[in-house]
This record gives sequence, structure tokens and C-alpha cells, in this order.
Amino acid sequence: MTQRIAAELIGTAFLLIGVVGSGIMAETLSDGNVALALLANAIATGAMLYSIITTLGPVSGAHFNPAVTLAFALRGEHAWKDLTPYVIAQITGAILGVWAAHAMFDLPILQTSTTMHRTGAAQWFSEVIATFGLLFVIFGGIRHKPDTVPTLVALYITGAYWFTSSTSFANPAVTIARGLSDTFAGIYPGHIAMFVVMQIIAVFFGHAVLTRLFR
Amino acid sequence: MTQRIAAELIGTAFLLIGVVGSGIMAETLSDGNVALALLANAIATGAMLYSIITTLGPVSGAHFNPAVTLAFALRGEHAWKDLTPYVIAQITGAILGVWAAHAMFDLPILQTSTTMHRTGAAQWFSEVIATFGLLFVIFGGIRHKPDTVPTLVALYITGAYWFTSSTSFANPAVTIARGLSDTFAGIYPGHIAMFVVMQIIAVFFGHAVLTRLFR
Amino acid sequence: MTQRIAAELIGTAFLLIGVVGSGIMAETLSDGNVALALLANAIATGAMLYSIITTLGPVSGAHFNPAVTLAFALRGEHAWKDLTPYVIAQITGAILGVWAAHAMFDLPILQTSTTMHRTGAAQWFSEVIATFGLLFVIFGGIRHKPDTVPTLVALYITGAYWFTSSTSFANPAVTIARGLSDTFAGIYPGHIAMFVVMQIIAVFFGHAVLTRLFR
Amino acid sequence: MTQRIAAELIGTAFLLIGVVGSGIMAETLSDGNVALALLANAIATGAMLYSIITTLGPVSGAHFNPAVTLAFALRGEHAWKDLTPYVIAQITGAILGVWAAHAMFDLPILQTSTTMHRTGAAQWFSEVIATFGLLFVIFGGIRHKPDTVPTLVALYITGAYWFTSSTSFANPAVTIARGLSDTFAGIYPGHIAMFVVMQIIAVFFGHAVLTRLFR
Repeated sequence: MTQRIAAELIGTAFLLIGVVGSGIMAETLSDGNVALALLANAIATGAMLYSIITTLGPVSGAHFNPAVTLAFALRGEHAWKDLTPYVIAQITGAILGVWAAHAMFDLPILQTSTTMHRTGAAQWFSEVIATFGLLFVIFGGIRHKPDTVPTLVALYITGAYWFTSSTSFANPAVTIARGLSDTFAGIYPGHIAMFVVMQIIAVFFGHAVLTRLFR
Repeated sequence: MTQRIAAELIGTAFLLIGVVGSGIMAETLSDGNVALALLANAIATGAMLYSIITTLGPVSGAHFNPAVTLAFALRGEHAWKDLTPYVIAQITGAILGVWAAHAMFDLPILQTSTTMHRTGAAQWFSEVIATFGLLFVIFGGIRHKPDTVPTLVALYITGAYWFTSSTSFANPAVTIARGLSDTFAGIYPGHIAMFVVMQIIAVFFGHAVLTRLFR
Repeated sequence: MTQRIAAELIGTAFLLIGVVGSGIMAETLSDGNVALALLANAIATGAMLYSIITTLGPVSGAHFNPAVTLAFALRGEHAWKDLTPYVIAQITGAILGVWAAHAMFDLPILQTSTTMHRTGAAQWFSEVIATFGLLFVIFGGIRHKPDTVPTLVALYITGAYWFTSSTSFANPAVTIARGLSDTFAGIYPGHIAMFVVMQIIAVFFGHAVLTRLFR
Repeated sequence: MTQRIAAELIGTAFLLIGVVGSGIMAETLSDGNVALALLANAIATGAMLYSIITTLGPVSGAHFNPAVTLAFALRGEHAWKDLTPYVIAQITGAILGVWAAHAMFDLPILQTSTTMHRTGAAQWFSEVIATFGLLFVIFGGIRHKPDTVPTLVALYITGAYWFTSSTSFANPAVTIARGLSDTFAGIYPGHIAMFVVMQIIAVFFGHAVLTRLFR
């Protein structure tokens, strides 16, 4: 169990290093061209997802996401008693990843985001679609082609940065940790709760639909 | 059969979410730089195609495209009586996907495109080449390397956004649905018919050539 | 044999559609930003290479390149008497591909390039390195991991657009055909011969080195 | 042994051709848009890494990096007596690659970098994270999915160009050789030592952590 918890913590830390670090670099270099910044951010995030899911999947399942762990628990494929340790490891790792990114870019370690535009019904609906789609590729991949799951998640999220208005957080641990970074990837802390609620709604909706679609 | 129809509907909905959603995001962020917008649009579309073909291929065949279903029927690999249900599911899913994209970006759900430049002999010829090429990679892949079909279609279409003047619709359901979006991916409804005609011509031409080439 | 010749002709035509078509689109949309145009051009070319090598490799070997056919002949893996038919099919297909690209973009079919900057010792040296590297990934891939050859060639060329000053033609049929397009991908006809000479030098140099390295 | 040494030398030369050559091209074409230049540089580097690791992995192990060779030696998977020959081949190949890139772009062969911004605690910390992450994907990949190692390294480094402030040199041979190029990829020679020290610290730290995580 220690090894699995360590894997979830390290993997989620790397995920946030990828998301927040590349966001800082992209914003710094792109000179106000937000499309170019988001393209670099999306490619770096996808590359990191492929890396950590391939290497840590056989260790911990490579969830790195409380919504995914909850979805596995609902399917009876993750022990309910292991839900809390996983979620704690994921949130802890995510925050450590954000802080590591700040340290790498010579920014104050402790920050809170002042990015105010990540709210509203359209973005909340986006988070439902984004999280449902993430579960869709994970459970469809596991059902039909388990070897492709790292590629599926990586490509899905790279695309979802673009086809949802929220840029697809789709992950409560990521959402919380991004509240602690006043950079390109940040989200105002007061807007975190609604994102997480939408992500959890998508887990239950996805559970109902996907168990039928991939039976 | 219900499961297969559901798969075609959901998959095609996701495809249009990918195409139209990323088009909206890309145009919004790229500040008039159309090349950058098309690059993001092409990458997001390819990522979505890989995701839905990998996960739903074993369920429904992952056509998401009336031209592809027709081509399979001509080869005797799809029952003629299942052609209509597939096409209805594809068109329905495509329209729902466009509407979902509008909802995610806080746009009016019901729109019709005013994009007037998707017409003319050069673009019609492009749709013949684009659709022929799509069938080429699908049937060549199935013949020689079935596991690569999701990657083949994803990469082919990502490239075809660039090497055809029409940006490769290559799909009647996609073409119809994009008529209902006055955004980056839109096509004026009066120009839909000729695109669809060209796509169907390519199916018959492709059938004649490809059954010989990949015998 | 007819099927193999058809495969070389169709595949090389698609390759030039990819190279020249995406070049036209990229230059048109990128508004003078050459780096962005080359990025789209490189990605589209790589996507096309993956598509045609995967689908046609089992039919004809998927050379699409007289330099590659010559290299196989030197290794005793391609009959010398089949060299000329292959090369004719490749050059014919390449020219047809260029013309198809022109038709898709509503340009005059018959053109000759006026691009004068593809010459000089540095670019000639680039063509030696580019072609040597292409043979390196092909023969290294075939020796150790045949399934990866389509990915190897696609990624190698996508990269080589950037790390050589000539943007890596590395293919006599492609070089000749690009002389017939006065667009982004064009090369002044008077500069073709030296590129082809360098590519052939690289074949002999590569043959000597690679048979030892991948013995 | 000669074949293995040749493989390390040729592979590392190609790696630097990829890094330095694409950096020159990207900077030249991007007209001051550093984000676009780094995107092209990162994609070309990843493409080259995939190419050389796939083809030369079965020959020499495809280290191309003294830090990786040292890490293998610490694990008892590389003979200590073969450490020095590997490192000499890697550094020699790296320098030859830089010179080949200069020749391809018609620049003076012998240069030293005047790029002064690759220093400071944040970048040193970046090099520790970057190198640790590289070892993480290599040893995690070898432990669980050896076939994915070329893809893992290629994608990880493509991402790491963005999520570290140093753009992830993560390789002493690469760091030394980039000191000899006064171009986009250059590093002032006086700043090389600290990068290399950080990379070696990461090897020992990684060895301690990763042997537990991937036991």
C-alpha cells in the first residue's frame, strides 16, 4: 500500500509540474498570444500524462484524480477503504507539484490565484462533459484495449484543453492545487467548489451510462 | 443493436464536440491568426478521433460517418438494413454534439452558418480526394494492420485539414451538423449538398480502386 | 507487380499532396509567419507518411523514394530489374500528386518553381545528412523493430524539416516534383540536380555505414 | 564493443543535430516569437529521440547521456569499466553533432555560446527535477513496458522543454556540447558545470527513490 500511495503522490506531483510549469513558460514566452500558450500547455500536459500513466499504471492504477478513484470504487474495482488514502495522496502530490513548479520558475512558493474567469454555467457544463469524456476513454480503453489507456488519456486531455470552455480540469485534486497558483493555469479559490461538484456529478452520470455502453 | 446505435450516436456527438468546440476556442484565442487556429483545431480533432475510434470500434465499428457506413455496406461488411439506423444515429449525434459545443461556450444553441467560402470546384474536388483518402487509410489499415486504424484516421485527418482546400469534411453527418454552427467550423447550409455529393462519389470511386489495391 | 507499381504511384501521389497541399494552405493562412507555416507543413507531412507507409508497406514496401529503392537494391533486398519500374512510378505519382494539390487549391496545374534559395554547400550537405538519417531510421527500424517503421519515418521527417537547412527533401522523386510547383514547397528546377546528387551520395555512404551498424 | 561505442557516438551526434539544428531553424524563422521557436525545437527534439532510441536501443542501450549510463552502472546493469568509453563516445558524438548542425546552416563550425541566462538556483533546481523525471520514465518504462521507452523519453523531453525553466538539458554530454554553439540552444560555458553537478545529484537521488518505487 505504501508503494501505491507513493505512486499516486509522485504521479500527481509530476502532473501538476507539467500543467503549471508549462503554463508559466508558455505565458512568459508567448508574448500575449494565448492560443500559442494554450497549445504548448496542452502538448506538455498530454506528454506528462502519457509518461506517468505508462510508468505508474502497474503500480497504483495511475489515477492521479479523485474523480477517477471514485469511479473505480463505484464499479467495485477499488476498495472503498482505499478511497481516502488515495485522495489525500493525490491532493498532497498536486500541491507539492504546484510548489515545485513555482520553485523551478523562481516564483513565490505560496500563492493563491486571482484568475476570475473560470466560472459560470457554460464552464460548469464543460466540466461535466470533460470529466464524462475522461471516464469514457478510461473505461472504454480498459474494456477493449488496456494498452492504449495512457495514449487515450493523453490525447483526450490535449484535445479537451481546446474543445471545452473550461480547458478541462476534470480532476478535483488538480482543481484544488491550481487554486494555489497565480499563473496561467490558476483558478480563483472561490470558484473551485463548483468545478469539483460538476466533476463529481459527471462521475455518477458516467457510471450510469458507461457500464451500459461498455458492458 | 441498441448498444451499437448508442455508440454511433455518442461517438459522433463527441466528434463534433471536438471539431466545433476546438474551433470556437481556437478562433477566440488566436486573435486573427488563422493558421494557429487551424493547427489547434486539427490537433484536437485528431485527438478526439483516436479516442472515439479506439474505445467504440469494438462496439459499433466506430464509423461516425455515413460515407464510411456506405463503403462498408458496398463491401458486404455492413448489413444494408443497418445502413439507415446508423446514418440516423450519426446525424443525430452530430447535431447534438454541435449543440453541446455551443452550450459549453455560452453561445446560442440554435444557429445556422453564414460562412460562405466553402464552395467551388476546387473545394468539391478536395472533398473527393479527402474522402477517398479516408477510405484508403481505413481499408488499407483493416487489411494489413487493424490495430493502427484509430491512429491512421486521426493522423490522416489532422494532416488533411491542411492538404485540402476544404479542410476535409469527408463526412456527410459532420457536414450537415456544421451547417448548424455559425463559428469557425461552420458551412453555409446551401453549400452542404455539393460537399455530400462529392463525398458519396468518392465512396463509389474508392470502392472500385481500393478493393483492387488491398485485395 | 502491377499492384506494387500502383501502390508506389498512389502512395507517392498522396505524399506530394501532403507536402505541397499543406504548404499552400499553411503559407496562405500564416500571414508571413514562416515558422508557423513550416510547423503545419511538417506535421501534415509526417501524418501523411505514417498513413501511406502503414497501409502500403505490405503491398509494395512503401518506398515512395528512388533513394530508398536504390538502397534496398544495394542490399540485395530489391531486384535490380525492378528498380526502373519503381522509380518511374514514384516520379509519375509525385508529379500527379503536385498537380492534384494545385487543382485542390484552384491554382494553375502546370507551374515551375521560382524559389531560388534552395542551393549552396550548406543545403547540399543538409541533403546528405537528411537522406543518411532517413536510411538510418528505415534500416535500423527494419533490423530491430519492423512495426515501428511508419512511425520512425514520419517522426524523423517531421523533425528533419527543422534540423536541416534544406528542410530535408531526401527523395529524388519528391525533389523533381517540387520543381513543378511555384508554392511554399517549390524548388527552382535548376537546383534539383545537386539535391538529387547529394541524396544518391548519401545512399552509398549510408549503405557502407549502416550495414556495419545494424549487422 | 566497437559497435556499441559507434552507436552511442552516432546517436548522440544525431541528438545534437536535432536539438541545435532545429533551434537555429526555429529562431531564424520565428521572427522573435520565442514560444513558437521553442515549440518547433521541442517537437523536433522529441522526434529525434524517438528515432535514435528505437533504432539504437538494441545495439548500445541508447543512453546518449552520461547521467543515464551512470544510473545504469549504479543499478549494476552497466559494467563500470564501460562507463568511461560510453561517456567519451557520448561527448565526442555530441560535439560532432553540434558542428554538423553549424555546417548545415552555413555557420562557423567553432563557436562558444554567449547565452548568459541559463544559470541561477531556479534553473539548477529545474535540472534536478528534469533529470530525475528522465530517469523516472526510463526505469519505470523498462520495469513495466520496455517497448514504450522510446515514446516515453521522446514525449517526456518534449514536455520538459516547457515545464522546467532550464528547458531540461538533463544530460551532461548535451550540456557540454551546447556550450559550443552560440545559437538558440547555447549555454555560456561558465554555466555548464553547475548544470552537470545538478544532473549528477539527480542520478543519485533518482537511484535511491526509483529502486524503491519500481521494485
